[in-house]
Amino acid sequence: MALISLSRRLRRTPFSEGVEAAGVKGYTVYNHMLLPTVFHSIEDDYHHLKRAVQVWDVACERQVELRGPDAGRLMQMLTPRDLRGMLPGQCYYVPIVDETGGMLNDPVAVKLAEDRWWVSIADSDLLYWVKGLAYGFRLDVLVDEPDVSPLAVQGPKSDDLMAAVFGDKVRDIRFFRFGMFEFLGHQLAIARSGYSKQGGFEIYVEGSEIGMPLWNVLMEAGRDLDVRAGCPNLIERIESGLLSYGNDMTDENTPHECGLGRFCNTHTAIGCVGRDALLRVAQEGPVRQIRSIEIDGPAVPACDQLWQIRAGEQVVGRVSSATWSPDFQTNVAIGMVRMTHWNPGTELAVELPDGSRRDALVKEGFWN
Amino acid sequence: MALISLSRRLRRTPFSEGVEAAGVKGYTVYNHMLLPTVFHSIEDDYHHLKRAVQVWDVACERQVELRGPDAGRLMQMLTPRDLRGMLPGQCYYVPIVDETGGMLNDPVAVKLAEDRWWVSIADSDLLYWVKGLAYGFRLDVLVDEPDVSPLAVQGPKSDDLMAAVFGDKVRDIRFFRFGMFEFLGHQLAIARSGYSKQGGFEIYVEGSEIGMPLWNVLMEAGRDLDVRAGCPNLIERIESGLLSYGNDMTDENTPHECGLGRFCNTHTAIGCVGRDALLRVAQEGPVRQIRSIEIDGPAVPACDQLWQIRAGEQVVGRVSSATWSPDFQTNVAIGMVRMTHWNPGTELAVELPDGSRRDALVKEGFWN
Repeated sequence: MALISLSRRLRRTPFSEGVEAAGVKGYTVYNHMLLPTVFHSIEDDYHHLKRAVQVWDVACERQVELRGPDAGRLMQMLTPRDLRGMLPGQCYYVPIVDETGGMLNDPVAVKLAEDRWWVSIADSDLLYWVKGLAYGFRLDVLVDEPDVSPLAVQGPKSDDLMAAVFGDKVRDIRFFRFGMFEFLGHQLAIARSGYSKQGGFEIYVEGSEIGMPLWNVLMEAGRDLDVRAGCPNLIERIESGLLSYGNDMTDENTPHECGLGRFCNTHTAIGCVGRDALLRVAQEGPVRQIRSIEIDGPAVPACDQLWQIRAGEQVVGRVSSATWSPDFQTNVAIGMVRMTHWNPGTELAVELPDGSRRDALVKEGFWN
Repeated sequence: MALISLSRRLRRTPFSEGVEAAGVKGYTVYNHMLLPTVFHSIEDDYHHLKRAVQVWDVACERQVELRGPDAGRLMQMLTPRDLRGMLPGQCYYVPIVDETGGMLNDPVAVKLAEDRWWVSIADSDLLYWVKGLAYGFRLDVLVDEPDVSPLAVQGPKSDDLMAAVFGDKVRDIRFFRFGMFEFLGHQLAIARSGYSKQGGFEIYVEGSEIGMPLWNVLMEAGRDLDVRAGCPNLIERIESGLLSYGNDMTDENTPHECGLGRFCNTHTAIGCVGRDALLRVAQEGPVRQIRSIEIDGPAVPACDQLWQIRAGEQVVGRVSSATWSPDFQTNVAIGMVRMTHWNPGTELAVELPDGSRRDALVKEGFWN
């Protein structure tokens, strides 16, 4: 195991002090920023996430802000999802594609007002694409990265912890909606969302200076709830089928391949980049697609590169994320499989980095 | 010290196998790819780099390829450096700015032909900016990331090692020029360049499959030269004044602030994005600029965030990179200082993360 070498380029967050005090043991880098990956152990963090409540430093979900008269037009250019019915106060998961329909990011769009949006991004410099389009099309819109750092509260006791800090009104927030709540004189957007299937919220912390005060208040208020510092959990996210840009998909994939066809309203999302290519894809359908895959045998090693999926000697796909699941007592995985072999129940083999092969099964759905 | 958690998203390189076999001890992440930071120790790697020769996996210097009739026009849009006199076979260091003159990247442009360029990028997804401009301006140009992974050979014995593998003709390559050389049937661009001041080359390895064969041939041929696996060295790069995008500059800085005004031919680089803003900057001059700074006392800690530079109680700048230099027996640093205090010989103070202050001195130049 190698160490991570710290530098200013791997940005700290407004919550780094709290993360360090909580004994973070591992990091990844996401949007040029530190993202914790483990505190106690990945397995221990996983069990705790499923039974209690955790506070996650996900400041690395940076925002791209679109502001001005052309903000709505630009936002619709970015995604094949039809945004006409979206209201301020809503969050939409939006695939972002280039002119060929290749995925550039899979963020959550937050509509603050008709002329103001935040795009809460996955791991790529989407800011550069949005700025390039705004400049090229001479749009009247300001595009930048504001001082906004999401802090997630995740786990079955999230409502209780959040209510203790922000009042019971927080319980009324519906899924993928947000409301404005006050903390230390700041108005903060709080959404019912997050990168787990255990329930919870994301607080869009505007103003770095209130980061640690909010972290500390949550930790203090959650003592009786067994609150802990946590982070997106590899096991839970694979069980839950939460895709990761850069892991499970890249710009080589269309949304349809990623199982995101339902977010592509290519007939009505007029003006979106990549529409021509995606209309074609929608008509013909993808020839490979994301599937949940169960891999036999003992715990697989860390999946840090694509593993080939085979039917006999023929390569029919690849695994992009995999780990041992303690709750399901099997290896859970996310892969992309060709249509000839993607039906649930298909028996395949996965080739591990050491050259060995494991029996594998295409599943009907994910494990939650 | 925390571990780095590996995943497919932090891409391996064609040379990762060699890097691991050589006992890499630390990584950073650069363009979503693993970049080694230390093998023996940073100090030991440093002494070795200055006396022998090292092979560096710098595959993370990804290429953005521009190809087609509008490639030259697009390339000039990207940078305020006048490219009219540039010939195929040349490499130019080119600041890339947005419409306000803020730095987006500081890559090396490699001109392969009149209608074909590689941009060898620093740590940001420049591909997205270039694609956005190409799409917005409807240019006839293909923009993508080719399968090209630079491998650097650095150190005073670089010429001997390279000549042993590619023949004596490699010695004739002039600084920031490249020639084409054959390896296993592939034609590879080899430039006299690299991220150190110890001399050397960068091999643009086109085709991942020849990565490890080339790595092994270099290691074998360099036995008598004491060749080792190495990596960009923190101490040497600060001594040499090699700036790092994301560390020493971000999109908040103009090229002039970074001391790169000589690469901004804003009067003649017609068509470049950000020209209006940079003409203004060129006229008025920057109010703060990169300086080399010597920090008194024992070795400073890792500089993973900006350190304030003070004149009395007034904040007059910030340090962005700093480390102990064994050869110069002082702490060497790179910082940005306001014009009121940027003259060589100015005595200042640097505030470390623990709140303590160290005497500091603005230097005339860097340490090489």
